[in-house]
Amino acid sequence: MKNNLNKITKNGRALFLAYDHGMEHGPTDFNDESVDPAKILEIADSGFFTGFICQKGIAEKYYDKNKHQVPLIVKLNGKTKLLPEEEPYSPQICSVEEAVSLGASAVGYTVYVGSQYEAKMIEEFSKIEKETDERGIPLIGWMYPRGKAVAGREKTKEILSYAARIGLEIGAEMIKIPYTGDKESFKWVVESAGKTKVVVLGGEKKEEEDLFKMVEDILSAGAIGLAVGRNIWQAEEPLVIAQKLHKIVIESSFQF
Amino acid sequence: MKNNLNKITKNGRALFLAYDHGMEHGPTDFNDESVDPAKILEIADSGFFTGFICQKGIAEKYYDKNKHQVPLIVKLNGKTKLLPEEEPYSPQICSVEEAVSLGASAVGYTVYVGSQYEAKMIEEFSKIEKETDERGIPLIGWMYPRGKAVAGREKTKEILSYAARIGLEIGAEMIKIPYTGDKESFKWVVESAGKTKVVVLGGEKKEEEDLFKMVEDILSAGAIGLAVGRNIWQAEEPLVIAQKLHKIVIESSFQF
Amino acid sequence: MKNNLNKITKNGRALFLAYDHGMEHGPTDFNDESVDPAKILEIADSGFFTGFICQKGIAEKYYDKNKHQVPLIVKLNGKTKLLPEEEPYSPQICSVEEAVSLGASAVGYTVYVGSQYEAKMIEEFSKIEKETDERGIPLIGWMYPRGKAVAGREKTKEILSYAARIGLEIGAEMIKIPYTGDKESFKWVVESAGKTKVVVLGGEKKEEEDLFKMVEDILSAGAIGLAVGRNIWQAEEPLVIAQKLHKIVIESSFQF
Amino acid sequence: MKNNLNKITKNGRALFLAYDHGMEHGPTDFNDESVDPAKILEIADSGFFTGFICQKGIAEKYYDKNKHQVPLIVKLNGKTKLLPEEEPYSPQICSVEEAVSLGASAVGYTVYVGSQYEAKMIEEFSKIEKETDERGIPLIGWMYPRGKAVAGREKTKEILSYAARIGLEIGAEMIKIPYTGDKESFKWVVESAGKTKVVVLGGEKKEEEDLFKMVEDILSAGAIGLAVGRNIWQAEEPLVIAQKLHKIVIESSFQF
Amino acid sequence: MKNNLNKITKNGRALFLAYDHGMEHGPTDFNDESVDPAKILEIADSGFFTGFICQKGIAEKYYDKNKHQVPLIVKLNGKTKLLPEEEPYSPQICSVEEAVSLGASAVGYTVYVGSQYEAKMIEEFSKIEKETDERGIPLIGWMYPRGKAVAGREKTKEILSYAARIGLEIGAEMIKIPYTGDKESFKWVVESAGKTKVVVLGGEKKEEEDLFKMVEDILSAGAIGLAVGRNIWQAEEPLVIAQKLHKIVIESSFQF
Repeated sequence: MKNNLNKITKNGRALFLAYDHGMEHGPTDFNDESVDPAKILEIADSGFFTGFICQKGIAEKYYDKNKHQVPLIVKLNGKTKLLPEEEPYSPQICSVEEAVSLGASAVGYTVYVGSQYEAKMIEEFSKIEKETDERGIPLIGWMYPRGKAVAGREKTKEILSYAARIGLEIGAEMIKIPYTGDKESFKWVVESAGKTKVVVLGGEKKEEEDLFKMVEDILSAGAIGLAVGRNIWQAEEPLVIAQKLHKIVIESSFQF
Repeated sequence: MKNNLNKITKNGRALFLAYDHGMEHGPTDFNDESVDPAKILEIADSGFFTGFICQKGIAEKYYDKNKHQVPLIVKLNGKTKLLPEEEPYSPQICSVEEAVSLGASAVGYTVYVGSQYEAKMIEEFSKIEKETDERGIPLIGWMYPRGKAVAGREKTKEILSYAARIGLEIGAEMIKIPYTGDKESFKWVVESAGKTKVVVLGGEKKEEEDLFKMVEDILSAGAIGLAVGRNIWQAEEPLVIAQKLHKIVIESSFQF
Repeated sequence: MKNNLNKITKNGRALFLAYDHGMEHGPTDFNDESVDPAKILEIADSGFFTGFICQKGIAEKYYDKNKHQVPLIVKLNGKTKLLPEEEPYSPQICSVEEAVSLGASAVGYTVYVGSQYEAKMIEEFSKIEKETDERGIPLIGWMYPRGKAVAGREKTKEILSYAARIGLEIGAEMIKIPYTGDKESFKWVVESAGKTKVVVLGGEKKEEEDLFKMVEDILSAGAIGLAVGRNIWQAEEPLVIAQKLHKIVIESSFQF
Repeated sequence: MKNNLNKITKNGRALFLAYDHGMEHGPTDFNDESVDPAKILEIADSGFFTGFICQKGIAEKYYDKNKHQVPLIVKLNGKTKLLPEEEPYSPQICSVEEAVSLGASAVGYTVYVGSQYEAKMIEEFSKIEKETDERGIPLIGWMYPRGKAVAGREKTKEILSYAARIGLEIGAEMIKIPYTGDKESFKWVVESAGKTKVVVLGGEKKEEEDLFKMVEDILSAGAIGLAVGRNIWQAEEPLVIAQKLHKIVIESSFQF
Repeated sequence: MKNNLNKITKNGRALFLAYDHGMEHGPTDFNDESVDPAKILEIADSGFFTGFICQKGIAEKYYDKNKHQVPLIVKLNGKTKLLPEEEPYSPQICSVEEAVSLGASAVGYTVYVGSQYEAKMIEEFSKIEKETDERGIPLIGWMYPRGKAVAGREKTKEILSYAARIGLEIGAEMIKIPYTGDKESFKWVVESAGKTKVVVLGGEKKEEEDLFKMVEDILSAGAIGLAVGRNIWQAEEPLVIAQKLHKIVIESSFQF
């Protein structure tokens, strides 16, 4: 494999703490605790996570590569939800060079598959992929179906397997993708991604048992892990959930 | 903190004299006195201000880095109000390199949060932020809600806290932002900005007591200061107001 | 001839295995076997093909220039079929430099002749052509009529001869083009391409006899070969078809 | 002052012969004499003018820096009037580098203030201004109100003072601007331009006395001179008018 | 004169064989003979022509600078006629650098005067003109009126003299332009072009006597020659026409 995922995986598995919601959703997801990046970084640095995902600004001001243990994953593009989302486009906010200098072990870029701006994002992704190759850092594709062309089908097997395949064909080392909702169809999504590793996004706060069930299903379908945000820092006891997820995702891993 | 704000703060506080109205509003805000940048620079250089904000052209022709004491803050983008403002975009007019050669201690860039051109401005801001980092000069984000998507909500807690958060996530060292109007909600705006420092814009000429009340409120909400323009140079005795503001903002400062 | 086609031809003839369908059509064309690029590469490497066509991502993760015998042809642009196809545009996904470093013996670029974005693709093609000339690697033009302007006429002699001629005039070393359907009209297409070599795309899965008939006709009309995908890997016995095609296309070749 | 205007002024005053009408209006303004750039250059070189304004193409083929005495001012952008003028944009036609190599003592760029493309032209102006600064050559802003947003107000005090101010704020060394029509209002225009020098455009052929009256008025309002075209080369005796204008503009100058 | 036209003129006159119809019109203009660039190059190389005009692709594969005598003129932009032509734009297909390396003695670029994309083409022309100046190779402007703004007036004195003037002002060394249809009006077109040389396009196949009449008229109006295509290679005896044209255009030349 090209750019080693070792730094952001353990036993071939990935458990990421995502914290780009301030940009993507606004501080509405936060409370007085979770609005503070320093608090979230403490959770991320608990030892249960194999990566911490945030935007450039948070990394610059809060992440200290000499102090923090959790690997940094810098999101290279981002958008707000202030504007109507029919045909979303997410501009590049951070260069690969900047991310590397901030101590990133990997970078991420969102492609809104199905959006009118799909071609533009695929083109930008590809240029970034060239840079990440040159610097030997993995590029993770956030492959999210959006836009009128796929409306109502964003979580179908057909569309998500297509999104996963695009990730493989344009050179993502790993993709972050929504779950279809059932194990059987998700197997096809994972197969379509080929050697590109698959992690699933956690999404909205769920009941614990629903979360754990989903995680077991995606792992058995072949995904290598999960990126969670709200399910951790909106929880009453984030570290308890984190530990349980670590057990399911990382410790139960079988060799690849 | 990355790029030191020391040059444009005193006791951790900021009081800026803003003078980019000729570009943004036209000379209609001015009288025979205030139309002359030399006169305004005299006020700015009175010792009461920790920064003087203007466009490149004014800086080139009036600001002398060997003579003037007040630190220069060059606004890097700007627009006129001649065109309908529904979905504003403000083009870049000055490079970081030019600003530095003019003697700037900081630079500013407006992002119209909520405008159709938001993505374009966020993208440009991010490129500029890379340059300011390389040159070690702070970048201040004018985070102004505008456009149909946020119409009528430009000064709400929800939108201004989102604007402040964007400032943090895209890497602003400091943001300049409107006031919500009440201390309580503004606290959340400041919290959302995290380690990014917050200054409030003065806006239209106000009654003195209203101005001072606002300043006290924003400071107690956690902002570090104010950018004033019309409230100074449209006043009968600019230096009297300036001195009073200096007292409230700078001298009453407690340690951060 | 400028950039030698020797590496991707045998006896002056070409037989390519195309496998960019995951990007262009989604994994819907695949089954559990054909979804796996490793399996397809095995077929491609059987000795019957003079080239294997895929996107950058597949090449990076599956093609090993030290192990695989079949020459690699990297497709430089690509698009999904998620968006309405009325006026298609296909963005560049891979640079010539990247393709060369992956071991490519040739590169391909699609121009949707007749699409509203025709000018943009012709312009990009031309820039790529300059790069391929500098690196001495042949550029193959996928010349595909598309868009309202040519709707219903995509396979006519008039439009395909025009598409072929454009390929010659913008500097393609070889073009990949649909078949008109009859030998006589296709002769004019080949003549219009001049010294630019012509290969025909296989298209949907066909009856064997229809496929072989078409191949004989295009060869007798002057084309130098065929690019096949579904007709191979959707076949029950891919290698049997491959061997037969090899016989018709490569072995029956007369000197040029 | 940054880039010295000495080369294109005399006694602090400016009298330019403008000859970019072939591009902006077509040859319809010309007769068999005035269509010939060589003839116009003879007039320009009469000693009465402090600058000759033309497009790159005229300069290349007719202006000889070793022979001609009149300083060359190359217009860097230009447009035709063939297309509807509602929202004009004027593309850059000549680089600063080319103008300098042609022997230019100054360069000009038109900003259509109020046009939908205002932001684009302001942005381009600013990039050019950076180059002219680096090469130490003055940049003159043609600040012309145009577009629906200012329709009917193109010559009002309000709009022209705004246009003048923009010239100052974006860094023009000098602006060329229409006359408001009365001395009093034009004083405010000149004041709004601050240290940026103001010259007025001559416009259509006028009665001599009207022309001279206007010139006296603009000078007494603080402008430093005039750019004339049709009022010279459509006159029966161009040199007679030129001499008279020279007397009013240059010789009657008082020290600045 | 800047970039010497000597290589593509004889006795100060020009007779070009144009062969870019495959790109601009499709192979529909051709028969089995004329579709072959090698055949046309034989005619071009007959000694009667002072230049051969074609696109990059033809030059690369057919023109041998060590073998062919006829000077090569590479067309740098081009478009197809597949798309509706209301507001044409012609993208750049070849760089000056490539053209020079192919052995070009001059290059050409089409500006559709009056088209909505006029500004874009004028801007591109100007950048190319800078490059041709640096390399000392002449740039010929195809100045063709097109678009709704000039519809029905494409061949009027008013529009063609404007087109010619634009050629001069943006720096063309020579222009290729349609004929107004009468000698008197065309004189004004030539005068408007000043020192920029004028050649006329031959257009559709004409009766011999009409063609020769036109040629005599344009020469007497001051044009220096003709670019012919269909009138040569659609003729029964191309070399007979070529010889006659050579006689009229080149041999009858009087000194300039």
